[in-house]
Amino acid sequence: MRITLAVDVMGGDHGPAVTVPASLQVLRENQGLQLLLVGDEAAIGPLIARVSPELRSRLQVVHTAEFVTMDDKVSTALRIKKQSSMRLAVNAVRDGQAKACVSAGNTGALMAVSRFVLKTHPAIDRPAIMAALPTQTGHVHMLDLGANVDSEPHQLLQFAQMGALVAEALDGHARPRVGLLNIGEEEIKGNELIKQTHELLRQSGLNYIGYVEGDGIFRGEAEVIVCDGFVGNIALKSSEGVAKMMAGMIRKQIGRSLLNRVLGALALPIWRGLRHEMDPGRYNGASLVGLGGIVVKSHGSADAASFAQALRVAVLEVEKDIPGLIARELSHPMVEVSPVASET
Amino acid sequence: MRITLAVDVMGGDHGPAVTVPASLQVLRENQGLQLLLVGDEAAIGPLIARVSPELRSRLQVVHTAEFVTMDDKVSTALRIKKQSSMRLAVNAVRDGQAKACVSAGNTGALMAVSRFVLKTHPAIDRPAIMAALPTQTGHVHMLDLGANVDSEPHQLLQFAQMGALVAEALDGHARPRVGLLNIGEEEIKGNELIKQTHELLRQSGLNYIGYVEGDGIFRGEAEVIVCDGFVGNIALKSSEGVAKMMAGMIRKQIGRSLLNRVLGALALPIWRGLRHEMDPGRYNGASLVGLGGIVVKSHGSADAASFAQALRVAVLEVEKDIPGLIARELSHPMVEVSPVASET
Repeated sequence: MRITLAVDVMGGDHGPAVTVPASLQVLRENQGLQLLLVGDEAAIGPLIARVSPELRSRLQVVHTAEFVTMDDKVSTALRIKKQSSMRLAVNAVRDGQAKACVSAGNTGALMAVSRFVLKTHPAIDRPAIMAALPTQTGHVHMLDLGANVDSEPHQLLQFAQMGALVAEALDGHARPRVGLLNIGEEEIKGNELIKQTHELLRQSGLNYIGYVEGDGIFRGEAEVIVCDGFVGNIALKSSEGVAKMMAGMIRKQIGRSLLNRVLGALALPIWRGLRHEMDPGRYNGASLVGLGGIVVKSHGSADAASFAQALRVAVLEVEKDIPGLIARELSHPMVEVSPVASET
Repeated sequence: MRITLAVDVMGGDHGPAVTVPASLQVLRENQGLQLLLVGDEAAIGPLIARVSPELRSRLQVVHTAEFVTMDDKVSTALRIKKQSSMRLAVNAVRDGQAKACVSAGNTGALMAVSRFVLKTHPAIDRPAIMAALPTQTGHVHMLDLGANVDSEPHQLLQFAQMGALVAEALDGHARPRVGLLNIGEEEIKGNELIKQTHELLRQSGLNYIGYVEGDGIFRGEAEVIVCDGFVGNIALKSSEGVAKMMAGMIRKQIGRSLLNRVLGALALPIWRGLRHEMDPGRYNGASLVGLGGIVVKSHGSADAASFAQALRVAVLEVEKDIPGLIARELSHPMVEVSPVASET
């Protein structure tokens, strides 16, 4: 299967220095892959000058001098920077030059540009950001991670339906368990959004297992966890914050004394194993689901190994035809949700 | 200063086997402390049979055979189990027999019983759950952690005011930095609740530093972080979940091979230091703030060292007279908030 991806090489904290080597790495791994490297050719040129002719033949540089910065407002990305590397990469998907696009740029801008250019699928109210997180037993797909605040129950139901389809396609898990993120401490469980969504999910035909609490995310209680984007983003970032704090504490303990430095050096195989399991690179690549095309968002701070992982996620989504799957399944009468949703 | 605490010894996953030894430990540390151990005297008796006469003289057992289970509904705790150890411990605070009460029982039940018995302070709409979490630079006080869902902006402002007062009293930090938990990824920052609360906080006279994202909690960006209870509980539990997952991964790496087991044993000083820094026991003891008395909630799964920490938090809050402080400061015209709040 020949697949072409459009890569916004200017996005992220490190730009081409990370995105181009990552692109070359994935191109080497996958003989059927072709890449459009969208960005400043003066920056890209030197990074691809020494590649083999075979590799070079599967690479095309699409030059533009404009790019979206991390601080750019969404409106700037959308209305002013119409020749940005991000915009041209998404355009390439719309125009059929690429099957998917990958960017490490500003999430809000990428979502807005993607919605504008690729459009939201007619059966979906709002696209969502979906990513895999490590758990004690494997991984979990969680959505929405920040595209939508103040979601409504029928929108959370749509997230659940998309999440289940994508998890099933990517992992080969039949009828993945779907959980609704909730709290267990308050007098009356959950807020209004949660209670109404719970009812919709119970009637949805999905393999809905009910509520999952914050710690349940990482215990592997479900394959798909659904939540409003505000809550999902807080959960994701809080988790990243704790993981970084713990890694920093381990480093601090090792640095505390000469003895600890020696012991820390001796324990290297343990750190390596831990780093392998916790490696954010293993889980880089969030999907913008619900659009008329495949867009994968890399973490802005991704290194080359992590950005390469985001490219692999995009390839897998192309192979599984995620947008086609969502379009087919969500137009199917069995999962037609509007009558239920409109009652609430 | 002579202080009496009422201890619900029946609460938590382990009951008297944990709460009684923890009580004796804190009693030994603090010569001015007296304790009411509220619970089944048949269970308590053997655990205090061998204590010294001096210690025994500062202990009083308040017998009751009834207790609130983790699965009890709030309504059961409130309306049926009127002789529960939890209820009698809170009653002791109301009746002046104790200055504070500590329980590891069901959070929802404890909050409901405390509100019913001790009443909410007149200047406060709703009490909140507040706890200290470790950060890269020390710790942060966060509230609400699950008592209130669907909070309104003026209620979040009250949480901020109470949080700042408590942080200042407990840590001796003048004008602690107050942050509002928010996300940075969406097109228009935050939801409606956040935007309105942001304005109230800007006008509050507090040392308000603006938005803090999920990972900022653990970077130590603020001394006080304010959020709705739904979001706060998800952030707290997600963080606990990641920390447990990482600890499990370290154990798994150490157990993987004979070499790793040997290296893991050698690295013991590093684990000990890490455990000390991450020790949930160092941070056990959440405060129910905004009530007419001091109630401290221990983690249900606390061991004796952790439960002892919750008792120490209660002693400190008595010494600082937290409810009196909140009553005095929140009746002060400088922080009178109703006119602003009612405009929103």
